[in-house]
Amino acid sequence: MRSDEPTRVAQLVARFHRGQSGTLLSDAPVPARLTHGADHLDDCAVFDLGGPVTLVAGSDYVRGPKFALYEQGLLSHFDIGYFLVAANVSDIAAMGAAPLGVLTVVRYPHDLDDDGFHEIMAGIHRACDDLGTLNVGGDIGSAERIIVSGAALGVCAPGTVLTRAGAQPGDLLCVTGPCGLAGAAVAYFPTRGAHRRRLPDNLEHRLLAGWRRPTARVAQGRLLSQGRFATSCQDTSDGLKATIEQLAAASGVGFDIHADAVAIDAAVAAVATLVGVDEIALAMSGSPDFQLAFTLAPQRLDACRQAFACQGLSFDVIGQACDPANGVRMTGPDGGTPLPGVTWRHQSDDLPGLLLRQ
Amino acid sequence: MRSDEPTRVAQLVARFHRGQSGTLLSDAPVPARLTHGADHLDDCAVFDLGGPVTLVAGSDYVRGPKFALYEQGLLSHFDIGYFLVAANVSDIAAMGAAPLGVLTVVRYPHDLDDDGFHEIMAGIHRACDDLGTLNVGGDIGSAERIIVSGAALGVCAPGTVLTRAGAQPGDLLCVTGPCGLAGAAVAYFPTRGAHRRRLPDNLEHRLLAGWRRPTARVAQGRLLSQGRFATSCQDTSDGLKATIEQLAAASGVGFDIHADAVAIDAAVAAVATLVGVDEIALAMSGSPDFQLAFTLAPQRLDACRQAFACQGLSFDVIGQACDPANGVRMTGPDGGTPLPGVTWRHQSDDLPGLLLRQ
Repeated sequence: MRSDEPTRVAQLVARFHRGQSGTLLSDAPVPARLTHGADHLDDCAVFDLGGPVTLVAGSDYVRGPKFALYEQGLLSHFDIGYFLVAANVSDIAAMGAAPLGVLTVVRYPHDLDDDGFHEIMAGIHRACDDLGTLNVGGDIGSAERIIVSGAALGVCAPGTVLTRAGAQPGDLLCVTGPCGLAGAAVAYFPTRGAHRRRLPDNLEHRLLAGWRRPTARVAQGRLLSQGRFATSCQDTSDGLKATIEQLAAASGVGFDIHADAVAIDAAVAAVATLVGVDEIALAMSGSPDFQLAFTLAPQRLDACRQAFACQGLSFDVIGQACDPANGVRMTGPDGGTPLPGVTWRHQSDDLPGLLLRQ
Repeated sequence: MRSDEPTRVAQLVARFHRGQSGTLLSDAPVPARLTHGADHLDDCAVFDLGGPVTLVAGSDYVRGPKFALYEQGLLSHFDIGYFLVAANVSDIAAMGAAPLGVLTVVRYPHDLDDDGFHEIMAGIHRACDDLGTLNVGGDIGSAERIIVSGAALGVCAPGTVLTRAGAQPGDLLCVTGPCGLAGAAVAYFPTRGAHRRRLPDNLEHRLLAGWRRPTARVAQGRLLSQGRFATSCQDTSDGLKATIEQLAAASGVGFDIHADAVAIDAAVAAVATLVGVDEIALAMSGSPDFQLAFTLAPQRLDACRQAFACQGLSFDVIGQACDPANGVRMTGPDGGTPLPGVTWRHQSDDLPGLLLRQ
C-alpha cells in the first residue's frame, strides 16, 4: 500500500510521537524538558532549558515539486539557496522565535560546477543576512542531484512561544499578507506557452518574487509573541486553506472566513482568469508564501495593529473562530460554503487542473 | 571547474563563515552568542544562551556512497533510519553534549510502500530509544529517491563543550574503540563474489553491525566533558586518519601515532588480508565508525580511565601530540612514516583500490 503524505503522517508517524511532549530530558545538565514535541504538530519542537530562554527548532527539506520552476530555468542556484533559508526560518518565525542560526545541507550532482555550488551558498548567506541570522554549518557533499535541506534554531522568552493550539471561539483570524502567489506561479509558468496570452512583465515578476526572494515573517512573529497578542499562529507554507484547517484542528475551533476580506493579489487574479479558475480558490490553495496566519482576541486588535504599524507592518482580518461544530466555512453574499481551494499534497503541480475538477 | 568536497569547503564555503564565531545574536530575549560557528570546523555549532546550559547543534545528511550496502540489499529500511540517528547524535556526542532531540528529514520515492516507510521511521525511533533521545519532528514527504537527513540538538554545562582545538604537545591521543569496520564492510561486500573465499559468518556480521546498529558514544562524550578530561575531541565519522589530521590542524599540533597501539579488529584484519591491503591502512581509512578520538594531559590519564571503567567503558591510547613541525606521523619498528590509509572523500567506494595505489 502506498498512502499519501498526510495519511502517513497521521497513521504511521503519529504513533511514534504520541505523548512525547512533557518529557523530562534527564541527562541534561539542568532539568530540560521537551514542552512541544512532534505530537503537537506545530511548525517546530520547543524545549524548556531551565534558563531565561525557550529553544525552538524545526527542519524543512526543500526540493521536488516545489522546484518545478528551477527545472524550467526560472530559478537560479542562488534562488534555491535563498529559498531554503526562508522556508526554514519561517518555521521558527511562526512560533514567535528570534533566530539563533540555520544549519544547511547542500548536496550536489557531479556535474554542478564550482560556480553553481558557490551560487547556492551565496543565496543561503544572502538570505541569512536579510533575515538577521547566520548559517552556522551543516553538511555539504555530493549526491545524485541537487538536494537542499535545513534546520532553523530560535529562542523565545519562556511562556511566549506561539503554537497552533489556543484559538478560542470569537477570536479574529488574521493573515500578514496576500496568499497564493507562489502557487499561482506554479500554475502559470509551466504552461505559459499554451495560454492565450502572456501576463505583463510586472505580474510575472511578482509571481516569481515569492520563489526568488521569499521572506520569513520574523518581525511579525516576534511582535505577536512578545506582545502576547496571538492565541494561535502558523505559517502559510502549505497554503492558506490548509493553514486555516490545521489551526482549526489544533485549537478545536471552527472558522468563518469572510470571502470579501481575503486579499487577492493582482498577479493571482490575473493567473486565475488566464487558467479559468476561481481567484479566491487559487489564493487559498497550496502555495508556500510564508505569511503568518494567527488568531487574537477582538479586544487586542487595536493594540496589535498599532504594534505592527510602529514597525511599518500590517495584517488583514479575514475571519473569526467559532464553535467547532460549525466547521471551517467561507461566508459571502451567497451564505456559507466549504472553504475553496486545494490543499498542498506535495504530489501534483497541476493546481489549475485540481481546482477545475473540484 | 568541479572541485572535490574538501576543496569546496576550504575555498568556497569558508569565506562565508569567516569570523562568525563570537557574534552576539542581538534580537534574542537574552544576550545569546554564537561561540563556535562554522568557522571553527567542529562537528557542531555552539551557542551561549545566557543560562545554565550551552546549546550544541549539528546536521548530517546520510545517503549516497555510504549506502552502497543498502543498494545491495545488505541494509534494510530500518537500518537506514537507525544509521541516520546514530550519525547525527554522534556529532553532539563528540562535543560532549547530552542529547535534547533529533530532527529528521525522510523523503521517499513513489514506489516505497507504507511498510518500507514505516520501517525507516521505526529504525529512527529505535535508535533514539537506544541513544536516550527523542525524534522531535522534521519533515517527511516524497522525492525522487530515498533521502534521509537530520539534525541533532544537545546541551552542555557552560564551559564544558569539547572541540577539535585545544590539544597541547605532550597530550595523549586516545580512541574509544577499534576503527575501520564500516570502511572494511564497503571494501568487502560489493566484491564479495570475486574474492577467493568468503569470510566466516561471525566476521561478516561484525562488518555489517557497524552499519546496521551503529552507536554514538554519548556516554563517553559526557564523561570527557563533565570531567573536563579531554583537551580536544572529534568523532571518527570520516575515518581515523582524517580525524587525527583534523585534530592536528584545529589544535595546531603534530601527532606521533604508535603503530602497535592502534587496535585492529579481527574483521578488519580479515578483509585486509582478503583484498590484499595493509591492515593498519584499512583501519585508519575512511570509515564512519563513530568512535571518539580525543586528547588528554598525561597526568589525567588514570582518572579518566577510572571514570570510564566505572561505567564499563574504556579507550586506547594510540599516540601523543607533538610539535606541529613534526607533522602527523606513525612511529613503529621502522621509524617514522606518514600516516597510512585513505581519507574519506565521499566520491569513491573503491577503498582497496585506493589503498593499493598509494
